[in-house]
Amino acid sequence: MLASTSARRLLPRPTRVLATRSFAFSNTGPMQILESVETFRQARRALPPNATLGLVPTMGGLHEGHMSLVKQARSSCDFVAASIFVNPAQFGPNEDYSKYPRTFEKDVALLEKQGVDLVFFPSADEMYSPHHRCYVNPEGFDDLVEGQCRKGHFRGVATVVTKLFNIVQPTHAFFGQKDAAQVVLIKRMVSDLNIPVDINVVPIAREADGLALSTRNQYLSPVERVAASVLHRGLVHAYDLFQKARKAGKTIEASVLRNVVTEEYEREPLVTAIDYVSVGSKETMQELSEVDTVEGAIISVAVKLGQCRLIDNMVL
Amino acid sequence: MLASTSARRLLPRPTRVLATRSFAFSNTGPMQILESVETFRQARRALPPNATLGLVPTMGGLHEGHMSLVKQARSSCDFVAASIFVNPAQFGPNEDYSKYPRTFEKDVALLEKQGVDLVFFPSADEMYSPHHRCYVNPEGFDDLVEGQCRKGHFRGVATVVTKLFNIVQPTHAFFGQKDAAQVVLIKRMVSDLNIPVDINVVPIAREADGLALSTRNQYLSPVERVAASVLHRGLVHAYDLFQKARKAGKTIEASVLRNVVTEEYEREPLVTAIDYVSVGSKETMQELSEVDTVEGAIISVAVKLGQCRLIDNMVL
Repeated sequence: MLASTSARRLLPRPTRVLATRSFAFSNTGPMQILESVETFRQARRALPPNATLGLVPTMGGLHEGHMSLVKQARSSCDFVAASIFVNPAQFGPNEDYSKYPRTFEKDVALLEKQGVDLVFFPSADEMYSPHHRCYVNPEGFDDLVEGQCRKGHFRGVATVVTKLFNIVQPTHAFFGQKDAAQVVLIKRMVSDLNIPVDINVVPIAREADGLALSTRNQYLSPVERVAASVLHRGLVHAYDLFQKARKAGKTIEASVLRNVVTEEYEREPLVTAIDYVSVGSKETMQELSEVDTVEGAIISVAVKLGQCRLIDNMVL
Repeated sequence: MLASTSARRLLPRPTRVLATRSFAFSNTGPMQILESVETFRQARRALPPNATLGLVPTMGGLHEGHMSLVKQARSSCDFVAASIFVNPAQFGPNEDYSKYPRTFEKDVALLEKQGVDLVFFPSADEMYSPHHRCYVNPEGFDDLVEGQCRKGHFRGVATVVTKLFNIVQPTHAFFGQKDAAQVVLIKRMVSDLNIPVDINVVPIAREADGLALSTRNQYLSPVERVAASVLHRGLVHAYDLFQKARKAGKTIEASVLRNVVTEEYEREPLVTAIDYVSVGSKETMQELSEVDTVEGAIISVAVKLGQCRLIDNMVL
């Protein structure tokens, strides 16, 4: 790691690049907001060549979960970039692309407060031309439980992350453990395609009652919000069973873990659907039948409360 | 473009990294041969950060066609890298992967003679782990005539070129017009995935009788070699017809161009199959029905002589 202060001193205070979209310039700091690939590349080239640059890719709708990624990037890299882009390629035709929360002014204020240096905020047209044909396809990921629920989702994620890496050229990138299959995908992709970016995974940020922070939590009605703590509670039951087996030096049937979680969710009347309760390999997310308590596993869930689909997971 | 000599002077003479495979070190120049991703990255990092690096990706079996790419890279970049890798992912199950010519010692001598700085020569295991899952998929390219003949070929090409770009980190890359659909694919991919590499296309190198240089020409028997000049002859007939229409300010039916080429090939008894005669868009290679003689087109062909499949093309 470079000494952060000395590398930063090499950089002249950047001129603010005015975004063409108007928003409140409530801060006077040096954060630059770049809306085109070309202007982002210019700003990137102005950084010292040996400095580290951490990227936090986001779809906006920022909350404390994202901020924990930004803080880790800020503490471990000379410069920090965040991207705000609601990526159409990772939404299915029946998903919430058009109504996904877009809270740009609030997002910018949060990022600036954390000392982010560069924000990449492209339009969908800037990212996908009508002639777009090349996608990064993580073959087999559509067979994972999350992939089965969201066909093509991981192809969209892999493609946009590849694009963002090529545009931003970070040395480090930060992803939340919240999207467990996405983390497995990104690590697989970086290895498969020899992408020269150091991948850092940040633990799930939770509310006091255990609910994992998510942009989609704002879809919940007040009663659904209270009921939503059931997701984490189910995972904790599985965790306790796993720990008991581990201490006894035993393996444990994956079905036992799945059942204890499923039963917890079935007891909650506001749960309208259990998309899956998965016990999978940490490396591949593929379903296990028996869990070696030394190797561990990852238990991941997707549940609907009313119209809102929530995911969560726990590493065992 | 940087001043070539001054940038080169910044680099201390690199220590030769000995290849584990033995071959004749007949040259005493500074060319390094790197067989692992890690050692290549080390050598890459030793180059001055602002120097240009041109990459010539090859599958070995080098001939004067490849050398024309190397020469162009040498004349336009501070440093030149070549890769030698017979990429299993771009060969179909019934293709010539195992018998594709491997002429490493000769290739190295040719590259060294042209002043290449770095040679990347990985094994298949170094490039593809057993867990490999992520492929760059140029959707729709399997529907092009060449893609129909070689299902999955372009996915293999796109994937390996992405990997090579990520490993070598060239500023420029050089491809031969000989593989016309590959050139269209690479340009599409670089645009779609925002890959920061400048793509340069080098004209087809031909023998005196017009035969396009190809590693696979060595599969030809002496009589087939003589007959093989028919590929180019057919294209020239189409070119002449196209020019006549252009000078008259007319469009021309694509079928007229296809027919004149096909008839020429049918007259050659050693032609055992005509895989296709295509008249397509320069940008997408998709088949045209009528050719606007201002916009032009690309006529591309694949023909078998005996067991040997040859391709050629001409930009109209």
